Amino acid sequence: MSVKDYIRTIPDFPAPGIMFRDVTTLFGDPRGFRMAVDQLLLPWAGVRIDKVAGLEARGFILGGAVAHQLSAGFVPMRKKGKLPGRTVEQAYKLEYGTAVLEAHDDAIRPGEKVLLVDDLLATGGTAEAGLKLIERLGGVAVGCAFVIDLPELGGRRLLETAGHQVHALCAFEGH
Amino acid sequence: MSVKDYIRTIPDFPAPGIMFRDVTTLFGDPRGFRMAVDQLLLPWAGVRIDKVAGLEARGFILGGAVAHQLSAGFVPMRKKGKLPGRTVEQAYKLEYGTAVLEAHDDAIRPGEKVLLVDDLLATGGTAEAGLKLIERLGGVAVGCAFVIDLPELGGRRLLETAGHQVHALCAFEGH
Repeated sequence: MSVKDYIRTIPDFPAPGIMFRDVTTLFGDPRGFRMAVDQLLLPWAGVRIDKVAGLEARGFILGGAVAHQLSAGFVPMRKKGKLPGRTVEQAYKLEYGTAVLEAHDDAIRPGEKVLLVDDLLATGGTAEAGLKLIERLGGVAVGCAFVIDLPELGGRRLLETAGHQVHALCAFEGH
Repeated sequence: MSVKDYIRTIPDFPAPGIMFRDVTTLFGDPRGFRMAVDQLLLPWAGVRIDKVAGLEARGFILGGAVAHQLSAGFVPMRKKGKLPGRTVEQAYKLEYGTAVLEAHDDAIRPGEKVLLVDDLLATGGTAEAGLKLIERLGGVAVGCAFVIDLPELGGRRLLETAGHQVHALCAFEGH
């Protein structure tokens, strides 16, 4: 079985017409979960990574495991108001309106190499905000890794145009 | 340094008078994060654990790493409405009112041994709901592990009285 085989599709969640790609069936399987973590890291074999930044909330599950595998630290990036310490904020666009992603202002030290991980790459807006936060904190974004890419939504193009290395384990057409 | 030394305290978050115990400084440090994962598992050395259940959202970070260390599957337990598939619900008390915790109804197979993890044990209400979900799905709750215990809030007593093994890496007085 490939990583993609472990992912189940749930129609009409969270809204009618949306095919939701559910990674909980991947993460719930010991072989699937380990395969996902191993494959996520393939492009960075031999590269020093100091920290793994994970996007709330499914990126926390994956990011915790990836950080553990690398013996790296973990940096949570959260929706506004959830982090207790002093933060830096980065706004990003949603389909309607904007949202804000936050990181603690001391979560990354200057020069640290940071890998961003999340379960899904769609429009790339949240990931782009996370990569900007890494750089604004003085870190070096070594790239970003996702389990799923939805190519029709253009996230890969957005991030690659901004100069980032993008890695995804599988792609689904439609959204 | 001990696990406790890595945890920082932020006064008056999320409300005046509350001393917030912030584990992001623990998870952000490679040595601290690994130490926390290793120590969380000490009581279950040699015990088969099939799945790790993590409570949204900080329990996802820790649970992802613990599941990875054990080569186990990960089961997310989330606030109502966040999981895409069919779920079982368990209500629990908050200081004012109630809340609902959910798990996918196929996340645990009958007889699977499941460890519950979260960053903080306070009143124990959420953890108790999580343990009930494990058992309602047919799983065997082997215990629950936390980074921090706030003993004054009585969570340990609640969970132990219900017959569960409770493990915490450190305790803080006051809350």
